[in-house]
Amino acid sequence: MTSDKPRDKCGVLGLWNADAFNAAETVYIGLYGIQHRGQQSAGIAVNDSGKIIYHKETGLVAEVFNDIVLKHLGSGKAAIGHVGYQKASESVREHAQPLVLRYKKGQMALSFNGCLLNTDRLREEFEESGHILQSASDAEIIATLLSRERVRFHTLEESLVSVMKKIRGTYSIIIMTPNKIIAARDPYGVRPLCMGRLKNSIVFSSESSALDIIGAAFVRDVIPGEILVVNDDGVKSINTKINEKTYLCIFELVYLARTDSFIDGCSVYGSRFEAGRILARESPADADLVIGAPDSAIAAAIGFARESGITYGDGLIKNRYIGRTFIQPSQSLRELSVRLKLNAMRSQVENKRVVLVEDSIVRGTTTRHVVQMLKESGGAREVHMRVCSPPVKFPCEYGIDTPDANTLIANLMTADQIKKEIGADSIAFLSMDGLLKTPVGAKCGFCAACFDGRYPIDRERDEPAGSTDTDIGARHGGL
Amino acid sequence: MTSDKPRDKCGVLGLWNADAFNAAETVYIGLYGIQHRGQQSAGIAVNDSGKIIYHKETGLVAEVFNDIVLKHLGSGKAAIGHVGYQKASESVREHAQPLVLRYKKGQMALSFNGCLLNTDRLREEFEESGHILQSASDAEIIATLLSRERVRFHTLEESLVSVMKKIRGTYSIIIMTPNKIIAARDPYGVRPLCMGRLKNSIVFSSESSALDIIGAAFVRDVIPGEILVVNDDGVKSINTKINEKTYLCIFELVYLARTDSFIDGCSVYGSRFEAGRILARESPADADLVIGAPDSAIAAAIGFARESGITYGDGLIKNRYIGRTFIQPSQSLRELSVRLKLNAMRSQVENKRVVLVEDSIVRGTTTRHVVQMLKESGGAREVHMRVCSPPVKFPCEYGIDTPDANTLIANLMTADQIKKEIGADSIAFLSMDGLLKTPVGAKCGFCAACFDGRYPIDRERDEPAGSTDTDIGARHGGL
Amino acid sequence: MTSDKPRDKCGVLGLWNADAFNAAETVYIGLYGIQHRGQQSAGIAVNDSGKIIYHKETGLVAEVFNDIVLKHLGSGKAAIGHVGYQKASESVREHAQPLVLRYKKGQMALSFNGCLLNTDRLREEFEESGHILQSASDAEIIATLLSRERVRFHTLEESLVSVMKKIRGTYSIIIMTPNKIIAARDPYGVRPLCMGRLKNSIVFSSESSALDIIGAAFVRDVIPGEILVVNDDGVKSINTKINEKTYLCIFELVYLARTDSFIDGCSVYGSRFEAGRILARESPADADLVIGAPDSAIAAAIGFARESGITYGDGLIKNRYIGRTFIQPSQSLRELSVRLKLNAMRSQVENKRVVLVEDSIVRGTTTRHVVQMLKESGGAREVHMRVCSPPVKFPCEYGIDTPDANTLIANLMTADQIKKEIGADSIAFLSMDGLLKTPVGAKCGFCAACFDGRYPIDRERDEPAGSTDTDIGARHGGL
Amino acid sequence: MTSDKPRDKCGVLGLWNADAFNAAETVYIGLYGIQHRGQQSAGIAVNDSGKIIYHKETGLVAEVFNDIVLKHLGSGKAAIGHVGYQKASESVREHAQPLVLRYKKGQMALSFNGCLLNTDRLREEFEESGHILQSASDAEIIATLLSRERVRFHTLEESLVSVMKKIRGTYSIIIMTPNKIIAARDPYGVRPLCMGRLKNSIVFSSESSALDIIGAAFVRDVIPGEILVVNDDGVKSINTKINEKTYLCIFELVYLARTDSFIDGCSVYGSRFEAGRILARESPADADLVIGAPDSAIAAAIGFARESGITYGDGLIKNRYIGRTFIQPSQSLRELSVRLKLNAMRSQVENKRVVLVEDSIVRGTTTRHVVQMLKESGGAREVHMRVCSPPVKFPCEYGIDTPDANTLIANLMTADQIKKEIGADSIAFLSMDGLLKTPVGAKCGFCAACFDGRYPIDRERDEPAGSTDTDIGARHGGL
Repeated sequence: MTSDKPRDKCGVLGLWNADAFNAAETVYIGLYGIQHRGQQSAGIAVNDSGKIIYHKETGLVAEVFNDIVLKHLGSGKAAIGHVGYQKASESVREHAQPLVLRYKKGQMALSFNGCLLNTDRLREEFEESGHILQSASDAEIIATLLSRERVRFHTLEESLVSVMKKIRGTYSIIIMTPNKIIAARDPYGVRPLCMGRLKNSIVFSSESSALDIIGAAFVRDVIPGEILVVNDDGVKSINTKINEKTYLCIFELVYLARTDSFIDGCSVYGSRFEAGRILARESPADADLVIGAPDSAIAAAIGFARESGITYGDGLIKNRYIGRTFIQPSQSLRELSVRLKLNAMRSQVENKRVVLVEDSIVRGTTTRHVVQMLKESGGAREVHMRVCSPPVKFPCEYGIDTPDANTLIANLMTADQIKKEIGADSIAFLSMDGLLKTPVGAKCGFCAACFDGRYPIDRERDEPAGSTDTDIGARHGGL
Repeated sequence: MTSDKPRDKCGVLGLWNADAFNAAETVYIGLYGIQHRGQQSAGIAVNDSGKIIYHKETGLVAEVFNDIVLKHLGSGKAAIGHVGYQKASESVREHAQPLVLRYKKGQMALSFNGCLLNTDRLREEFEESGHILQSASDAEIIATLLSRERVRFHTLEESLVSVMKKIRGTYSIIIMTPNKIIAARDPYGVRPLCMGRLKNSIVFSSESSALDIIGAAFVRDVIPGEILVVNDDGVKSINTKINEKTYLCIFELVYLARTDSFIDGCSVYGSRFEAGRILARESPADADLVIGAPDSAIAAAIGFARESGITYGDGLIKNRYIGRTFIQPSQSLRELSVRLKLNAMRSQVENKRVVLVEDSIVRGTTTRHVVQMLKESGGAREVHMRVCSPPVKFPCEYGIDTPDANTLIANLMTADQIKKEIGADSIAFLSMDGLLKTPVGAKCGFCAACFDGRYPIDRERDEPAGSTDTDIGARHGGL
Repeated sequence: MTSDKPRDKCGVLGLWNADAFNAAETVYIGLYGIQHRGQQSAGIAVNDSGKIIYHKETGLVAEVFNDIVLKHLGSGKAAIGHVGYQKASESVREHAQPLVLRYKKGQMALSFNGCLLNTDRLREEFEESGHILQSASDAEIIATLLSRERVRFHTLEESLVSVMKKIRGTYSIIIMTPNKIIAARDPYGVRPLCMGRLKNSIVFSSESSALDIIGAAFVRDVIPGEILVVNDDGVKSINTKINEKTYLCIFELVYLARTDSFIDGCSVYGSRFEAGRILARESPADADLVIGAPDSAIAAAIGFARESGITYGDGLIKNRYIGRTFIQPSQSLRELSVRLKLNAMRSQVENKRVVLVEDSIVRGTTTRHVVQMLKESGGAREVHMRVCSPPVKFPCEYGIDTPDANTLIANLMTADQIKKEIGADSIAFLSMDGLLKTPVGAKCGFCAACFDGRYPIDRERDEPAGSTDTDIGARHGGL
Repeated sequence: MTSDKPRDKCGVLGLWNADAFNAAETVYIGLYGIQHRGQQSAGIAVNDSGKIIYHKETGLVAEVFNDIVLKHLGSGKAAIGHVGYQKASESVREHAQPLVLRYKKGQMALSFNGCLLNTDRLREEFEESGHILQSASDAEIIATLLSRERVRFHTLEESLVSVMKKIRGTYSIIIMTPNKIIAARDPYGVRPLCMGRLKNSIVFSSESSALDIIGAAFVRDVIPGEILVVNDDGVKSINTKINEKTYLCIFELVYLARTDSFIDGCSVYGSRFEAGRILARESPADADLVIGAPDSAIAAAIGFARESGITYGDGLIKNRYIGRTFIQPSQSLRELSVRLKLNAMRSQVENKRVVLVEDSIVRGTTTRHVVQMLKESGGAREVHMRVCSPPVKFPCEYGIDTPDANTLIANLMTADQIKKEIGADSIAFLSMDGLLKTPVGAKCGFCAACFDGRYPIDRERDEPAGSTDTDIGARHGGL
């Protein structure tokens, strides 16, 4: 099913000290909680008594793993997992993670979510010294850097500190070696990463939704620029102090993250709900019914309804059975089958003035269909479009797969033109100010470059990063 | 994913005169609109220039069909389809439909949804005369009867009239021969069946949702006891006049049907919404938030909120990725992973007094988990259970797969005991009177035997059914 | 891999009283011994404590069965199996056997190898009485007849006697009910069927090669027109005495059967070897080396070499890896890759005068390639074709899938023309007299209609068959 | 199907300048000609207008490739392929080749057959400088070395010369870059590699059998220590002159290679035939029939028969349907089903004194079964074992997967003990002198270490290898 929404590129997960559980199984279950972050490949690597074994393949978690594979992965002491999404130009299979490799000190497995900005220079640098790369992925570049630094440094975490000073970009990384798990978040905090506890086990995950699913308690977010090392001695935190300002991707709150996740102190659901409320104040509509585009704009629609006092209703139903193997109908039928993936609920919207709440508009193609369907099939009298984020005008340079700038509808048209293009009776976007008020309780700053074009991270660093600070060691209890 | 809800057994679909479309493709797309009625097998039979070819297999529509299969089915003049669900004791594969067979007059394909009551006697009767049965399914019994009657009668529709007088039960049938399609609905109208038009094509479907999906216009419901014959001469209606009273399965409105379908004049969504409103009047709750169990109770929850004036919210999120291939976690993890399929939205429900709206309670096992999750993971202060149908106390004898009477929670406990068992702070069921008011605009009577134990159809008929009436022929335009 | 040889249509296998073994597993292993008789479908039905369960699918035995399927079939008291091959016009899947069905007396499974001649009349007869047929296969016709007769007769074997009097054709049948296994061979003995013993188990198989494979001892061939019934009381033989003359298909000995089988007293290998010897006497060649077309003509080639005194050699090597999934090269490459399936051994044949022994020539297409390859790639000086059977001039009407009469090369050309067409330096066929001398020790007459056009069985019987004779009961020990 | 024969580890194939053909398709077809060299993985990499795309997977060629995959690989200018076999301890999937990677100069694909001896030192060496290895295979080590040398040298072929001086071992390598194909054979010539021509295309293959299959003409063997570079300018030969003495693996002639291949001037069939003749002279037998163990000892058996004057016959038949998915019978049946894979032809061997010719005996387990079967099932009076190679007493250190020294039967027993163990009436092995006479016309020396324990290649070189010599460039026509 194609979508005109941007897609995240990956989700990472890691588990240490699975004495009470089967590590592979627990990570398998947990991956269902971050499946929305990457639906093209999945993988799990297991620390099986000091040997790393793994399985990864293209497909959804449910397609990649079965009883036999899980049994084969056995019940190790630790495991890390990954769900991935690749750009069209990349070989999905070769990019499946975790990346498992041998280096000077033995085996290592690595799960990576994010986007390096200075790969060209880095790749050139070590191809120059004769390295080979099999996938040319950011994960392989980091692994190669780690391996090179490991020759100079005493521990893998020290090497990682050094690597983090060399690379520029946005990332969450989980690394597993035979005797530890290391998790790290980029100094800008663009991509999310959090830590939880499951009995005596420590869990890292891109989103807290995976913690909920395996019954783990949320402990805290990993701090931007922080490295956490877990081994038999407990959890140790290293603050690389590479950066000071943080820029959590605000689009995680707008659309990417699962609605029940908490990221850097913000409830995703709460942020979306708040966006609806603020928009209702900024751009009220004279209407009979508020509906949300399923599933991502339901929270915002409820917020809009609550604030505006307009009745909330369920005006669109999504077909849950249209999956990746769906065969597109031929042209003659395609024009007729517009209600295949989404159907308007005539009993709800007929003769009504409807507020249609969307979380964001990117290319606008789907939106046009929805408005048309509400009017033609559903019999809505008016459709008032309310978009709970500003117009998307700039492509993401930090790893989210957005369309080219010249296919972003807000780059091509004014709001009024968009209104006509999609056939709505009115349209309003959340203001930039409004958007920045949505993440209630945020413990971070934000990158909103897709909306405002202010890209906070340069491709190359001007000056060397600050020196490594003291390790802040801590026992479990201390976190 | 197991569920403690009853499941429908099948959905049927048929298309005649596909001159503007590819028949197989159109039926393929349409089956996505009734996929919820049967998720264990799927099939399509095509009239390929007078020869019937087909493909059927166990699995979802998306699993059973692919490009190669659809191409092989070609582009015939007509096609019928089926989605099925079997009892645990049946071989899923041998029961996959359409049933395709040869009889005296050539080939026939048959899709069946329903349940025959007097099969034992029928089977005995014709095994006595040496017939063999390969699946012993109701569909095969009807086909055998049809074939026997066809020896005596001049047309297949006359034979069908005769068969409908011999059989007792609930059903929707679609039959395809090389030169016509015949659709019939049981005299009691227990199972739904409707007719639509797609340009010059006539479409039959268990639910109107499939018409929407292929862009067909809804024409009307098939009348209980009616046979509709479509061929190159147009559509002809035969009223078998076998019965006078009709008993649409009210559970179709409560839970089984797709929320955007219309059945016998009732909007399914509207009925559920109305159920919520009536219940809010019958059993109000002192609470801060109304939430619905996804996805089936959302409409009712919105109705409850609207009537009660209590804020509506989205308190539970369903994991869309847990499919049939999901591997159950082992015991140690299972207890922890209660939030795998459904997660409570802490940001919404924390410290709130919550009304949890359900469409029905059958065994009650899932409900208990949901209440517990809302309290423990979600932090809800109180949970007030509101069930938008009366207690289910009687197993369905007409084809819906309900648990044994002694596992129906309402048979084992009083409402108060149920409240304690599931951990709710209060509980209320919709009254029988209330339920019967929910199908606004119904053009039929109802069977509510699962709630009130009044089974309207006897297993054997006491006296012979009325004589066949005149055929009421009609051209397309006349319907 | 296409072949221009006729193909058998099926192989049947049955096992009773598997107390020391797993019945499904034993039949599974045994099917490998008759896999050459049918490579398009395979199936096994098991008597699981009185209930018949089964699995059948398109593909080779190795593709159809796996650990999970075999485990599911469990370890019953009895089992029957089938390997099948269908005509291009038939749906392979629907024709897969054993056919499993319900009739008046319960369940029955049936494996059939052969060809009924009077099906049109039979099908018409019972379609007239309202029966339906799902596959219209000969197996289903026999099952339907059996079911009808069973109403009149006391036992299934008596019904079978009656059915065998109504049907005309060539067949081997194995039937399993919850308490017995019945094996029967057509009155003309055209298709082979034999009985073996494995400890306390009785085994029936199309060929003795399957007995060898499971370690069973050969007991005897089933007599043409004989019915054998095995149950807890032992083995009972019924001589239907329908016919007196027998006509074993001589092509079984020429090509169809496995070379290590014994059929009606003849060693298949021995017959082929003898054919080579006789041909060497009938049509000697002045040559340096005798080679055989692999694999079917090796025995005959060794016989030819032995008799002629010319050196035997191995001049052609077959590629064992070219299977059903092989993707044909495109035209430009196809002309070059003639040595893909078969390669000439230059080191053996270069500059030699070679006798190329074939078992039979049907369309002649492959033969032309082989002769050309021996000369061009192998460097043979002369190639003398020696065919160990007379020219195939008549299509089989009794179940073997031969090409149309007008594509049989011996119908289109004289021997001299064939010689030129295939590029040989001389050619000779075994005489009809010679052929009839090849089955040393035969206890039967033969059908050689494909060679001599004398079809011994009429499509319809002129007069009623003789009356049933006394059952010849016998304990195990007596056989 | 387990075998107690050693197995080769790989086969390589490459094609340049496929203007008249589809490169991927041609390599696909060609791989069928070396499938016997590696049956666990297969892969093809294609030069698609300067970009290298590839597909590789575990399984046979027929399993790994299908229409869709071949279509996806398109029709490039060049392609290389690989069939592989891994040691039990290796991950088959990660070792599938061709290895495709990026290095300083772009992309490279590499197919490797052989065994490096000094990998530990090499791996240590570049792990020390921070390289990572994903599979730790010999292929990846060579690629890494190449990439490192490429920094110092001007061309890839110069880098390869340098690499070949650093590595010790036995190998055939085919490398593809966007503008050339490079083939190289180890300085000792242990593993075979030859060159052919297909119209204007140049082909490299492990064995000439692949050339035959695609219709290519054999040009010559690659000389030990030679590097051949093919690009748009033609074929250039580089003689690295690293070594002077050559040691072709004699086991290629005894068992590993396809019988229709020619290696270094020897016909494989001819060598085996000659082995049979010499053995007949060295160790005659008083017998009635000579038979060979299929398929590898047929040539030798015919040679033995020819020389001894004893009648040659076909006494054993192999089941062609027992593949990798065969499910082993359980214990009770296993003892009975000894004739499953191989059956004795009673009609041939009964009451005969039989000479059973084998190509080699390694662990002896299969041989014991065969002798027993010939006597018990076949009824042979005597069985005289004649083995056409000396006793295998030493494990291969150069890449052939032989059992441990202490499971080699010739290490555990004397010939007389072996005779008793396998139940033969006499036994004789070909002498070492005899063996060395078998490769008629050989243009090389041999390694026969598995028979005589004289391992000609040391793990580490004592002194540096000689300097690179002048390139011997040549146009196509010059070869």
